[in-house]
Amino acid sequence: MAGNTFGRLFCVTTWGESHGPALGAVIDGCPPGITLTEEDIQSDLDRRKPGGRYTSPRREPDRVEILSGVFEGTTTGTPISVIIYNRDIRSKDYSPFAKVYRPGHADRTYEQKYGFRDWRGGGRSSARETAARVAAGAVARKFLKQHGIDIKGYTKALGGVHARKHDWSEIDQNPFFCPDSECIPAMEARIKEVKTAGDSIGGIVEVCVRGCPAGLGEPVFDKIDAQLAGALMSIGAVKGVEIGAGFSSTAMLGSQHNDPITAQGYASNHAGGTLGGLSSGSDIVVRVAVKPIPSISIPQQTVNVDGESSTIEIKGRHDVSAIPRIVPVCEAMVLLVIADLMLHPFPGAT
Amino acid sequence: MAGNTFGRLFCVTTWGESHGPALGAVIDGCPPGITLTEEDIQSDLDRRKPGGRYTSPRREPDRVEILSGVFEGTTTGTPISVIIYNRDIRSKDYSPFAKVYRPGHADRTYEQKYGFRDWRGGGRSSARETAARVAAGAVARKFLKQHGIDIKGYTKALGGVHARKHDWSEIDQNPFFCPDSECIPAMEARIKEVKTAGDSIGGIVEVCVRGCPAGLGEPVFDKIDAQLAGALMSIGAVKGVEIGAGFSSTAMLGSQHNDPITAQGYASNHAGGTLGGLSSGSDIVVRVAVKPIPSISIPQQTVNVDGESSTIEIKGRHDVSAIPRIVPVCEAMVLLVIADLMLHPFPGAT
Amino acid sequence: MAGNTFGRLFCVTTWGESHGPALGAVIDGCPPGITLTEEDIQSDLDRRKPGGRYTSPRREPDRVEILSGVFEGTTTGTPISVIIYNRDIRSKDYSPFAKVYRPGHADRTYEQKYGFRDWRGGGRSSARETAARVAAGAVARKFLKQHGIDIKGYTKALGGVHARKHDWSEIDQNPFFCPDSECIPAMEARIKEVKTAGDSIGGIVEVCVRGCPAGLGEPVFDKIDAQLAGALMSIGAVKGVEIGAGFSSTAMLGSQHNDPITAQGYASNHAGGTLGGLSSGSDIVVRVAVKPIPSISIPQQTVNVDGESSTIEIKGRHDVSAIPRIVPVCEAMVLLVIADLMLHPFPGAT
Amino acid sequence: MAGNTFGRLFCVTTWGESHGPALGAVIDGCPPGITLTEEDIQSDLDRRKPGGRYTSPRREPDRVEILSGVFEGTTTGTPISVIIYNRDIRSKDYSPFAKVYRPGHADRTYEQKYGFRDWRGGGRSSARETAARVAAGAVARKFLKQHGIDIKGYTKALGGVHARKHDWSEIDQNPFFCPDSECIPAMEARIKEVKTAGDSIGGIVEVCVRGCPAGLGEPVFDKIDAQLAGALMSIGAVKGVEIGAGFSSTAMLGSQHNDPITAQGYASNHAGGTLGGLSSGSDIVVRVAVKPIPSISIPQQTVNVDGESSTIEIKGRHDVSAIPRIVPVCEAMVLLVIADLMLHPFPGAT
Repeated sequence: MAGNTFGRLFCVTTWGESHGPALGAVIDGCPPGITLTEEDIQSDLDRRKPGGRYTSPRREPDRVEILSGVFEGTTTGTPISVIIYNRDIRSKDYSPFAKVYRPGHADRTYEQKYGFRDWRGGGRSSARETAARVAAGAVARKFLKQHGIDIKGYTKALGGVHARKHDWSEIDQNPFFCPDSECIPAMEARIKEVKTAGDSIGGIVEVCVRGCPAGLGEPVFDKIDAQLAGALMSIGAVKGVEIGAGFSSTAMLGSQHNDPITAQGYASNHAGGTLGGLSSGSDIVVRVAVKPIPSISIPQQTVNVDGESSTIEIKGRHDVSAIPRIVPVCEAMVLLVIADLMLHPFPGAT
Repeated sequence: MAGNTFGRLFCVTTWGESHGPALGAVIDGCPPGITLTEEDIQSDLDRRKPGGRYTSPRREPDRVEILSGVFEGTTTGTPISVIIYNRDIRSKDYSPFAKVYRPGHADRTYEQKYGFRDWRGGGRSSARETAARVAAGAVARKFLKQHGIDIKGYTKALGGVHARKHDWSEIDQNPFFCPDSECIPAMEARIKEVKTAGDSIGGIVEVCVRGCPAGLGEPVFDKIDAQLAGALMSIGAVKGVEIGAGFSSTAMLGSQHNDPITAQGYASNHAGGTLGGLSSGSDIVVRVAVKPIPSISIPQQTVNVDGESSTIEIKGRHDVSAIPRIVPVCEAMVLLVIADLMLHPFPGAT
Repeated sequence: MAGNTFGRLFCVTTWGESHGPALGAVIDGCPPGITLTEEDIQSDLDRRKPGGRYTSPRREPDRVEILSGVFEGTTTGTPISVIIYNRDIRSKDYSPFAKVYRPGHADRTYEQKYGFRDWRGGGRSSARETAARVAAGAVARKFLKQHGIDIKGYTKALGGVHARKHDWSEIDQNPFFCPDSECIPAMEARIKEVKTAGDSIGGIVEVCVRGCPAGLGEPVFDKIDAQLAGALMSIGAVKGVEIGAGFSSTAMLGSQHNDPITAQGYASNHAGGTLGGLSSGSDIVVRVAVKPIPSISIPQQTVNVDGESSTIEIKGRHDVSAIPRIVPVCEAMVLLVIADLMLHPFPGAT
Repeated sequence: MAGNTFGRLFCVTTWGESHGPALGAVIDGCPPGITLTEEDIQSDLDRRKPGGRYTSPRREPDRVEILSGVFEGTTTGTPISVIIYNRDIRSKDYSPFAKVYRPGHADRTYEQKYGFRDWRGGGRSSARETAARVAAGAVARKFLKQHGIDIKGYTKALGGVHARKHDWSEIDQNPFFCPDSECIPAMEARIKEVKTAGDSIGGIVEVCVRGCPAGLGEPVFDKIDAQLAGALMSIGAVKGVEIGAGFSSTAMLGSQHNDPITAQGYASNHAGGTLGGLSSGSDIVVRVAVKPIPSISIPQQTVNVDGESSTIEIKGRHDVSAIPRIVPVCEAMVLLVIADLMLHPFPGAT
């Protein structure tokens, strides 16, 4: 595949540039008979929409339209095409960057790969591309809900401020999708401070899968862990993925890390819900490292397309952090992985 | 694909159980005209062979045979089939585990997926499967060498002992594949202590790609980062993957993390050699978290196949740590990813 | 993949129902740097457009819009999304068929696969889906033209009337895309006669590839012959595919059939441009059997959704034959196969 | 994929050259819990074995060994590796062809693709490769038998002699796998006459699938027809594929061709068991055109590797016709297609 399709049986192909007329996704392989409306998708899209207090002032309504695959309110089993028209495009903001490479962005590597690039708002490499992923994830969510599977993402850390509590009911009550209400003031203070400095920050997002049956995944190369890691690392700002105890397990003893098995289930969940590349029936817990977004207004050293040294200051409309808008994107990628696995043969289930 | 094939154009399919007659790999898509002998593969296999001082006492010569795809010492472009016969099988050691699940292993999840399992030495879920990956990686290495690409793995940490120096010339001079000779005594002490306790430890492995051209990878879902993360997380003991600054980038400011671009290249390499999912031409640096191996002789709580509580002590032949034997396996997975990407269309190169 | 994506490196995903709001294609993997306008695509679409003298009276302008992947008139290497809005929808015409299965159509099998179906105009199984294929093929054509490859389809037989001459300059001069002007009157007479009877006819379409380099294809399962056959048989009305001498070779002797090789090339082209699954450098010649279209106004025996016997007369807007509108569709599928193969590694070319 | 893997969920990868040490297949995705012995595979292999009265005098026992994926006589769900060692290799017979291209063979196109070739017995392009397909097909047969699906191939025509009757009980009673015992004498006479002349002949093979459930296949590009056509056309000697009435439908009227639907099923089966790319529940009937094998002892015109005109006489051990040995190969490819489809999601079945 040429790189814009994800999944094997629940397949999603996305398309569209930041400053093109529209972007969208084709969701192929969604089972028939699922009720699906534009509102089902819109509610997820609204969670990643720009224009919030701490996010880019670009005003995109991000209204989704369903163009195929649904008949009388129900999926038919044929491809579901969704489209989101771009409305608030100001390509001129980006014209200074047509001839100079923004550090930390894909500008130069795209040019190295393709010979030239669409410089308007990052073109295809813009985070705007992830709107299509969220739309596709929303369709996966409807399918998984039928099977009692619930997937939730939330902010574990922002700019060095760490959540200590994990109260799911808090997540949608604050602008950071954080499960710990007590750290919200510190996060707000941090983000204001960084914004004032014209700088940016990153953080850690965790996604949890509840209700996943045991035995999902394929051994060897297509372990559920491998699929989750690949899916999450395909999000632009993500630079690390860990499952269960993850990197902290590297300093543990086997006797500490191993999950004792009891009649009630696994006594710890250091493994993060997978064993031997297959889901164990425990909650699947995966965390991603989100780098600070590269667009900052502080002057930076770079080169132009002719290889000459240059200085750049990025004044366009951009977020201070990929968090919180990246949270529904991480959720979407996990939704897509689990939906795809649920369609794979599962002989032990019969 | 059914889970035992990796890659799209440089495709590897592996097969074989720990205690079956043999295991092997079919490498399909390797370009023609590359000189390839069994010795080329053997030298990589020998690096992961059991029987070392700190590793399993299972005595496997791991002699590889090439059965196809090579004519008069040169690859032909047709599938290269390699086979390694198992010699030192003692399945009886495992018969106590036919009816009881080993914690931290795939025993129970395999049974949940497939309805039953080959309990001899872990069957397909045994780390022995990775011998086939290393053999395939050795073929990829020969191909990449033609393009001046050099890939090296090494131990960054073992049971809490961290390497501080990065001297590649040291790596093959010590049994831990560690680039810092000064920490070898501490690593040796740590591993002896843990072995005496009947316990196990994990650590951190880093793999570095030198000489990779810029522009490799596919944007969006098939970013080079995503492919590396998926590939490495498909190794049994790996619970986390990070690229460049990885998880440490989550507490950095954008102004710290961004790679300033100079006429000489990238001033830092926090990005780890990738930008926008494409290689930047800098060294690609990726690290994996290796969990402690689950087979320990300390008694553990578990259940048997009838769901009854049980206690287990694992006395079989096993390593104290997946490190160092996992190092060439990590290397192999990175070799396979880069070899596959090198065959993909690369329009900017023309 | 879930069945609506074609190709591996030049990948096309299509979507849309006959009576939904729109249909379209995402073309992923098209190389960058190719000039591409909507007019380039429109000219191919116009050749399969309904509304001709011998075709369905449905009036669809079939105007294509490019939504992504093109910047300043040139492809960028990112997915090209094209959309065609449906205009002349009269779903009511089809409401009699909501509860009864049309013989020769997919009505009943779709219901058996998916549990229910979109009965409006055949939904996804409508030949209208092929407009998206033609649009994608037009993009492939632009890419192949850069390499001097020219692909042309034409009518070899219609309702038993066979073309005897092969004058390419005639093909676009008559409504049947027939390379033999002398048989046009007989074809016209035949189609009028059948139309008057409320019946339908089929025929034979041939596609020829000129300028294809030698060595394209992959041995064994992905032979160029296999890919062409799979591609062409994926068109609804096609029931047979043959290459070169095809079925007539079954009565030849080896000494008659073999292509003697001369310094100037192959003396005959009974092989149809392929040897051992690879292109030989001769013209690739492939023929398809097109069945009579199943929608006829003559009463037919069938059953309804409750399994009761019924009689059906199909009075909707439909063609008398899939020919000539299927000609550009066959061309498109061959264009997609060759474009995909041209992106595959081709070591002998270097 | 690199061309030697077939299928998506029931995946088969084959490897091996005609004159290498061995050939084999890896069958990945076969469901667990199926009883499988080497004898199950051997019985199919014996049907395509060389050494019969009308076939190549090469004496290959073609003994298959199972190397993985079976535990205590039952498939485990992990890859099944099968190997067949080559015994009766006389590569010297082929040394005259190292520098000259055999007409009708892949000699020259392989060299054009790969830059050079393994000339011993055709290397990878030898029909010997199909032994691995037959072995894999035998595994698929065991799986399909569990679902009541029975697949049978037979000779419809040989060198112009056509079978008129279709008595399945005759098929295994004669050396041509022909369902019409009355035409055996004519076939024998024809093959002797051609053999005496040093020439070769082709014919037509039909494969029939009985007991296939309705609704198998994927609409649009992955129609069951398309998959069968691609699978069968991937066999070296096959130059045409047709389903149901096939090419004869091109001269029918719609009113003749359409399958009237009755409460008892389809009144005719002109469609050959598929409608809209999905199986209809009727017998699936597919026919392939087999060209005369290109190895003949009559002198032929050709060129050598330096492009100079030459004459060639092929005296090696070869069959007079690919029939009957191709019959189990055709069967195998249909077995693999149906096995793969049976593992795909099938929502209407629930």
